[in-house]
Amino acid sequence: MAVLGTVAVEVFIPVAALIGIAFAVLQWYVVARVAVNSDAGGGAGGKGRGGGSDVLEEDEEEEYGVDRLAVEARCAEIQQAISIGATSFLLTEYKYLAVFMAAFAAVIFLFLGSARRFSARPEPCAYDPARECRPALANAAFSAVAFLLGALTSVLSGYLGMRVATFANARTALEARRGVDCAFAVAFRSGAAMGFLLASSALLVLYVAVNLFGLYYGDDWGGLYESITGYGLGGSSVALFGRVGGGIYTKAADVGADLVGKVERNIPEDDPRNPAVIADNVGDNVGDIAGMGSDLFGSYAESSCAALFVASISSFGTEHNFAAMMYPLLVSAVGLLVCAVTTLVATDISEVECTDEIGPALKRQILISTVLMTGGIAAVTFLALPARFTLFDFGNDKHVKNWHLFICVSAGLWAGLVIGYVTEYFTSNAYGPVQAVARSCRTGAATNVIFGLAVGYKSVIVPILAIAAAIYAGFRLAAMYGIALAALGMLSTIATGLAIDAYGPISDNAGGIAEMSGMPHRVRDRTDALDAAGNTTAAIGKGFAIGSAALVSLALFGAYVSRAGIKAVDVLSPRVFVGLLVGAMLPYWFSAMTMRSVGSAALRMVEEVRRQFDTIPGLAEGLATPDYATCVRISTDASLRKMMAPGALVMLSPLVAGTLFGVETLAGLLAGALVSGVQVAISASNSGGAWDNAKKYIEAGMSEEARSLGPKGSEAHKAAVIGDTIGDPLKDTSGPSLNILIKLMAVESLVFAPFFAAHGGIIFDRL
Amino acid sequence: MAVLGTVAVEVFIPVAALIGIAFAVLQWYVVARVAVNSDAGGGAGGKGRGGGSDVLEEDEEEEYGVDRLAVEARCAEIQQAISIGATSFLLTEYKYLAVFMAAFAAVIFLFLGSARRFSARPEPCAYDPARECRPALANAAFSAVAFLLGALTSVLSGYLGMRVATFANARTALEARRGVDCAFAVAFRSGAAMGFLLASSALLVLYVAVNLFGLYYGDDWGGLYESITGYGLGGSSVALFGRVGGGIYTKAADVGADLVGKVERNIPEDDPRNPAVIADNVGDNVGDIAGMGSDLFGSYAESSCAALFVASISSFGTEHNFAAMMYPLLVSAVGLLVCAVTTLVATDISEVECTDEIGPALKRQILISTVLMTGGIAAVTFLALPARFTLFDFGNDKHVKNWHLFICVSAGLWAGLVIGYVTEYFTSNAYGPVQAVARSCRTGAATNVIFGLAVGYKSVIVPILAIAAAIYAGFRLAAMYGIALAALGMLSTIATGLAIDAYGPISDNAGGIAEMSGMPHRVRDRTDALDAAGNTTAAIGKGFAIGSAALVSLALFGAYVSRAGIKAVDVLSPRVFVGLLVGAMLPYWFSAMTMRSVGSAALRMVEEVRRQFDTIPGLAEGLATPDYATCVRISTDASLRKMMAPGALVMLSPLVAGTLFGVETLAGLLAGALVSGVQVAISASNSGGAWDNAKKYIEAGMSEEARSLGPKGSEAHKAAVIGDTIGDPLKDTSGPSLNILIKLMAVESLVFAPFFAAHGGIIFDRL
Repeated sequence: MAVLGTVAVEVFIPVAALIGIAFAVLQWYVVARVAVNSDAGGGAGGKGRGGGSDVLEEDEEEEYGVDRLAVEARCAEIQQAISIGATSFLLTEYKYLAVFMAAFAAVIFLFLGSARRFSARPEPCAYDPARECRPALANAAFSAVAFLLGALTSVLSGYLGMRVATFANARTALEARRGVDCAFAVAFRSGAAMGFLLASSALLVLYVAVNLFGLYYGDDWGGLYESITGYGLGGSSVALFGRVGGGIYTKAADVGADLVGKVERNIPEDDPRNPAVIADNVGDNVGDIAGMGSDLFGSYAESSCAALFVASISSFGTEHNFAAMMYPLLVSAVGLLVCAVTTLVATDISEVECTDEIGPALKRQILISTVLMTGGIAAVTFLALPARFTLFDFGNDKHVKNWHLFICVSAGLWAGLVIGYVTEYFTSNAYGPVQAVARSCRTGAATNVIFGLAVGYKSVIVPILAIAAAIYAGFRLAAMYGIALAALGMLSTIATGLAIDAYGPISDNAGGIAEMSGMPHRVRDRTDALDAAGNTTAAIGKGFAIGSAALVSLALFGAYVSRAGIKAVDVLSPRVFVGLLVGAMLPYWFSAMTMRSVGSAALRMVEEVRRQFDTIPGLAEGLATPDYATCVRISTDASLRKMMAPGALVMLSPLVAGTLFGVETLAGLLAGALVSGVQVAISASNSGGAWDNAKKYIEAGMSEEARSLGPKGSEAHKAAVIGDTIGDPLKDTSGPSLNILIKLMAVESLVFAPFFAAHGGIIFDRL
Repeated sequence: MAVLGTVAVEVFIPVAALIGIAFAVLQWYVVARVAVNSDAGGGAGGKGRGGGSDVLEEDEEEEYGVDRLAVEARCAEIQQAISIGATSFLLTEYKYLAVFMAAFAAVIFLFLGSARRFSARPEPCAYDPARECRPALANAAFSAVAFLLGALTSVLSGYLGMRVATFANARTALEARRGVDCAFAVAFRSGAAMGFLLASSALLVLYVAVNLFGLYYGDDWGGLYESITGYGLGGSSVALFGRVGGGIYTKAADVGADLVGKVERNIPEDDPRNPAVIADNVGDNVGDIAGMGSDLFGSYAESSCAALFVASISSFGTEHNFAAMMYPLLVSAVGLLVCAVTTLVATDISEVECTDEIGPALKRQILISTVLMTGGIAAVTFLALPARFTLFDFGNDKHVKNWHLFICVSAGLWAGLVIGYVTEYFTSNAYGPVQAVARSCRTGAATNVIFGLAVGYKSVIVPILAIAAAIYAGFRLAAMYGIALAALGMLSTIATGLAIDAYGPISDNAGGIAEMSGMPHRVRDRTDALDAAGNTTAAIGKGFAIGSAALVSLALFGAYVSRAGIKAVDVLSPRVFVGLLVGAMLPYWFSAMTMRSVGSAALRMVEEVRRQFDTIPGLAEGLATPDYATCVRISTDASLRKMMAPGALVMLSPLVAGTLFGVETLAGLLAGALVSGVQVAISASNSGGAWDNAKKYIEAGMSEEARSLGPKGSEAHKAAVIGDTIGDPLKDTSGPSLNILIKLMAVESLVFAPFFAAHGGIIFDRL
């Protein structure tokens, strides 16, 4: 028998979540000690971490002279503008989403209710027909509630992340004046605050929901965890619109600002004369922060739900072993504690003293958390699980030992590490691939793009092999439960993953604020170094997101097949194959929409920025203030209008396929979208990351060769800027949205499976 | 009973093939009447078609003055140089291939022989164990022979195509002086000569092989058609190296020539001062002509082999109904006759009088051949097939009526038409998508690339739906036989397809020759118009190639599964899913290799071209002759060296997967590569076509808007050139090679299936 009892589990999970929240608040508190006030006379130099002094270094003082106060005031002003822009965009977006969510919750209730003709009578249990379970109508209602709960938590995740980031950006810029170590500490702590806040609240809400739903469901664990899957669907739905909307927002502004600013007017990035610059900085926060937060929350919620659902139909469920049943949540709870220890290493033990150490420090974070977590998994596995138990693998009993599950979770965890390291290799300018891309700029933009595409394609190989290995291990040892656990394993260090991921856009924003507030070049160089490392960590974060999405989708796919009562998904059945082929096409359709949206919104932005330069006298000379608000409005409008069509494609495809062509075609569709979408997503993210850092490599003049390609404004640099701009929508709009596409379609199919099984296939049944 | 008897079939097929060859020779003869001689006093103005006069229009005469003879002499010289370059490259390539083919034939013999321990004793028949069939050793030997035969025919197809094209290019340029109608006629007739030669000889060789092999096999039709599949493998193996090698050759030269010539030196395309210009024109012939010829021959051979193999295990085979058995070849034979009639419409009935009519005339060819062929299919179906018969669908009997097969073949045929029309819409500059791409050049290369990628992605949707519909129809009505027939249907008008496809590179070459030999701008404008239409037809040709490849691969996949004795390819088995995921990755790995090869070869070419401009005195002014041979050598070396790795990836993947991971993983791998590769291939081809024609749209100033973007050398035009250059490796190297990847892996798996079934899976069997 396992060691941990029900009570211990009931206490441990919420306590771990609360510790995580406390840890996040602590980090936030430390960051908050850096003061940003318009009334800058107070104390701009708040205490940084250990030993930071109140006054700037002497030479810096001299350089600023009386301007220092003006710079700080300007800093606060810009932070205010970004924060207001981001908040107002998110609130508008969420208003639209609220309508959609309410409508979709109604759809869930109606479809699921109609599967059994809105019967309010108890039903025989699906996996044990001798017993009575809760009525289908209750499942429909609870699924809709869980959906809304997931959507709400996702909104919260995105919003809180944005608040943390817009709180931290100016502080990072101010600290960058004191040194790269101080700036790194602020940016990283803020990322950690976001990471822990999100991971902890996701766990806590899910835990509370399971317990509250349990009050009604009692013994009917099948019904309980079936309804809970709505939580994952809600999370991912918000994430979809968040990623797509935010992605269009940020890239329309970014591309538009760069095309006129850098290419036509030859003014630096983030120059305050550029009318689109505020929109660009707002975009980082609503796209890369809020969108990404919702996305990873969605992955986490879905993998937990998938694991719980599969576990509920195992011997844990039938024997009502609560401690074993909660194993997925226990893994996440231990993950929070491990990540807290890992974060302390970065903030309080090892020091980042120069820019070269930033990348390795972040990489070390992933390694430490992975090693520690392996121990954590072992502990929780042997404490919470019985030595042997039974899973139901498509009607067959599968006998599993507890150390099998240890391997499943660890396989996911270590596959994540491999993905992280490979992504770093292909997107960091410390290695060959990005340097080769930079070198190809010598012959112009065309070769740059050709090499960048090739790097993105090549970067797919190892991550796919790693995911395949994790899948084989998980599948072989514990069927679909093993896959779900592998996904959770990859996400178990999500707090650390989010910390190093959020760190990137915060540094990017800090750079923007440093430039706009007129800080000296040295400060900008420091934030640029932070940002270059941030590009790589953002790519790593996307790697984790897509890797875990692949595993989650497969687990959800398995749960869907089981719930829809499909015996086998045979590629040699015409229905399945047609689904597979069309499913593999969906990521392309989706990308075509999002790429085009960014392109056309950027064109409108370009026109507006040009118009302002042409019609506002003195703007080019810095004597007049541009009309930032109009650019913000253009990005907002474009993003809200253009997120509808791709969102509809994702939300409707499973409904259409399931209703018209039946459960088997839908199964094929999911598998096709999964295996094709993963490749598109990884290659898009990494091509984009490589181009961005190739540009930064030339700008920073990091080597003899880099200096021969530069400086800013050289032909090679212009070519690099073109590559970077092309990569923008690939890495920040299309690519990262695709993992939501594959997850969301899978979880939606799972939720609607009873309806499709009852009424689906009205066209193919006649052909 | 069917009407056609064995004798009628035995006569009809070779007669149709011989008529096709005669028709090709006739077209060649007409083209040959345009004289090209260095001794230009003769008669440069050979008779074009109906009413062409011997003398040029008066104003042209004046314009040329005494230079006319010099121009013609120079024309002949250039043609000579291109022809020698192409011939020597192909012969070198074929020398390498000969070694590879001999080795691989030995591998086939050893692997297949070892499946039954080289037993020379008769075996019980696979599908009727009561009877005795030929020994496995004989099958191994005949498979190896069929492989060599297929390889040889593929070599022949590529080589003959190249000869026709290098014969026609200068003649097209010379005729362009007389008018666009004359030039069109020459280019189109030459394309037809190539198309008919190839389609007819493919049919004839296959027909002869079946009959010769039959002398040994006698009643053992299973063994006979099993061995014949080696023919398809041989064809595709040569096609792979032809496409990849030719693709790298042509694009290294093209990209290299453009980057220095157009971008740096501001000299026109195909300017004789550019040292890479001969290599570029040679490339068109070895890549787009010889490679494409081998490719479509491969598709044709494989779909015929797949159909024959599946038919041999139907009631046709068991009842030895030869006429019904030969149905696939009958369809192709009728296709030859239909295409001949269709070609007469273009050459002798409807006239192309101005450049606007070129596109519609070519499009009309596809429509006419499709409509006529539908009638042809109906005739052959009701004449050759019994009213009802039985197929063996994975062990189940499937009862089929003859009109079912009519629908299967027609579904493929009409899906091809849909693909052709959609491809035209997305890549022709007469429609919105390309014009939007051109418009996006206003804001620079970055938006151009973003829009072009989006167009490519979007262009995938309808073709995939068309292929899916054909698959569903074929599969539903006649299982895998239906799929194979759909593929044959799509390829039944291959002669016309090849004619309009080959027309493109011939026109491209003609443009090059016109420029190099110093013909007036008016002539170059005409060849440019021919070439713009050629870009679209090339994209259409690639659409056909990939569409048919998808169908063929699926049919081969089905045959493989049946031959390997797999019961179901269940996505929910870990072995299959892992194969599916990794298979979907292979197109990316392959593309990474080919893109990078083109990129790095182009860089070397750029260096050489720059070196020549810098070190050869008077080159830039046109006073010295560049060193063309060195550039030819760079392309040749790069292509031969760099085709090995991607070729090995394709050839080895099925062997590794089958041997180490077993038949189920290999099945997953094939399905994954198929559904993912199709999308990558279509989007790559169409993005490339769209960029190329967006550039041509701006250059030709075809509308008010196009003129506002131009002229050549404007910022928008420079952006368009960058897009075009990026598209080059996508559309002419990676994209079109991918359809060979998916076909070849499938046919190779089919050939090696007995070995994998006997000895495969040594790793997964232990895990």
